[in-house]
Amino acid sequence: MSTPSGNLAEAVAVAPETASAPSGFKIFNRIVDWITNERMQLINITDRINDIVRKSGVRDGVVHLQSLHTTTAVFINEWQDALLHDVRAFLDDLIDRESYWRHNDPQYSDCERRNADSHLRGMLMGQTLCLQVRNSAVLLGTWQSIILAEFDGPRSRSLSIQVSGV
Amino acid sequence: MSTPSGNLAEAVAVAPETASAPSGFKIFNRIVDWITNERMQLINITDRINDIVRKSGVRDGVVHLQSLHTTTAVFINEWQDALLHDVRAFLDDLIDRESYWRHNDPQYSDCERRNADSHLRGMLMGQTLCLQVRNSAVLLGTWQSIILAEFDGPRSRSLSIQVSGV
Amino acid sequence: MSTPSGNLAEAVAVAPETASAPSGFKIFNRIVDWITNERMQLINITDRINDIVRKSGVRDGVVHLQSLHTTTAVFINEWQDALLHDVRAFLDDLIDRESYWRHNDPQYSDCERRNADSHLRGMLMGQTLCLQVRNSAVLLGTWQSIILAEFDGPRSRSLSIQVSGV
Repeated sequence: MSTPSGNLAEAVAVAPETASAPSGFKIFNRIVDWITNERMQLINITDRINDIVRKSGVRDGVVHLQSLHTTTAVFINEWQDALLHDVRAFLDDLIDRESYWRHNDPQYSDCERRNADSHLRGMLMGQTLCLQVRNSAVLLGTWQSIILAEFDGPRSRSLSIQVSGV
Repeated sequence: MSTPSGNLAEAVAVAPETASAPSGFKIFNRIVDWITNERMQLINITDRINDIVRKSGVRDGVVHLQSLHTTTAVFINEWQDALLHDVRAFLDDLIDRESYWRHNDPQYSDCERRNADSHLRGMLMGQTLCLQVRNSAVLLGTWQSIILAEFDGPRSRSLSIQVSGV
Repeated sequence: MSTPSGNLAEAVAVAPETASAPSGFKIFNRIVDWITNERMQLINITDRINDIVRKSGVRDGVVHLQSLHTTTAVFINEWQDALLHDVRAFLDDLIDRESYWRHNDPQYSDCERRNADSHLRGMLMGQTLCLQVRNSAVLLGTWQSIILAEFDGPRSRSLSIQVSGV
């Protein structure tokens, strides 16, 4: 089942930094960590990203999200329990954990996590997402939520967030 | 079949705004609406985006496209009728509308559109696209067109376009 | 098998250009060509991108990669031989070259390359990638490599690289 972001241990790992040019063009960087507790887990990070955008002082620009782990992803979808169940079922079915994968075969690979499926899911869904910032908030349609996907948990995961603009 | 963009009702929904820093760094924002007329429909928006880039006054930078709807996508491909047919067939086959999806089951979901397939297609293909701007035009290879995909039409769809740079 | 980037013929196609605003906001553009030698080939371009970022003079910002070809992709994954084998097997299996595709049918298409599978793979995996730049280097997690994928080689392929920020 999906986990509300409120249940997650969350900590700011790195002090925020702002690189400001004389012009008013600003870049604000922050790394946020999440501790996940399931192998495949979807986390709604929309509110957290909006907090950071608000604090960045950027009114108009973009926010760029980059997960630092190959077996994760960041994407947009509606945050509804039934649909999140379908998302997990779809990814489970499309990339079968139990198929033969060379990455899981000790004859070819020194990886002991047997997580080829996690790598393929992360690659397919993508580890970066760039969204517009308007009026000091992330621009999102009514049904759009920002989702961080864990594909090889439980683990601690870092997301680098960069807000830039004027 | 694919619909040439000229057949679409299209309206500028929001007056363009330019946020210009003293330095010459510029951000130009615009929202454009398209009215779609099929459930799955591919729209070639390349010319429309190039018009907006030209008007933005940005010579060198990026154009960021963000659809405001979870059941749409924005991506690049060649604009050829036979290939567009294959794109629709591939997505139809990969994510079967008639499979059991919890999002379509009244026992679990209050969504009456029965559009789990549309959500999964939108998630997979992505609702954002960032392209380079060079010499006041979108940088595109010979065969690259910008495609807005409707996965749950007919509806009115908004695309937010941000051009930034110098 | 995967090809180490050192084996590839590689040439800078276009002289680099920097568009600098008085503020310190900089844009640095470069096009790099790769000559591929297999139909499906994965190329580790991480070091090449880091070289360009270092030369750009941008300390803090983003690097945007855009392949100029519909039958290629740019994405992130771990660079491990066994896993790269799985990536190719997964894409081969998901989009079968031998299925009927209208793009390959002379009755519907004037394309003689019979490369519908290449187009669908390029569309699914995406031809653009935007990554953060921190301290004059591409921000990447321990296991993240930047991969350029050829889906219809052997050919010469151009990647446009834009570094921007302060």
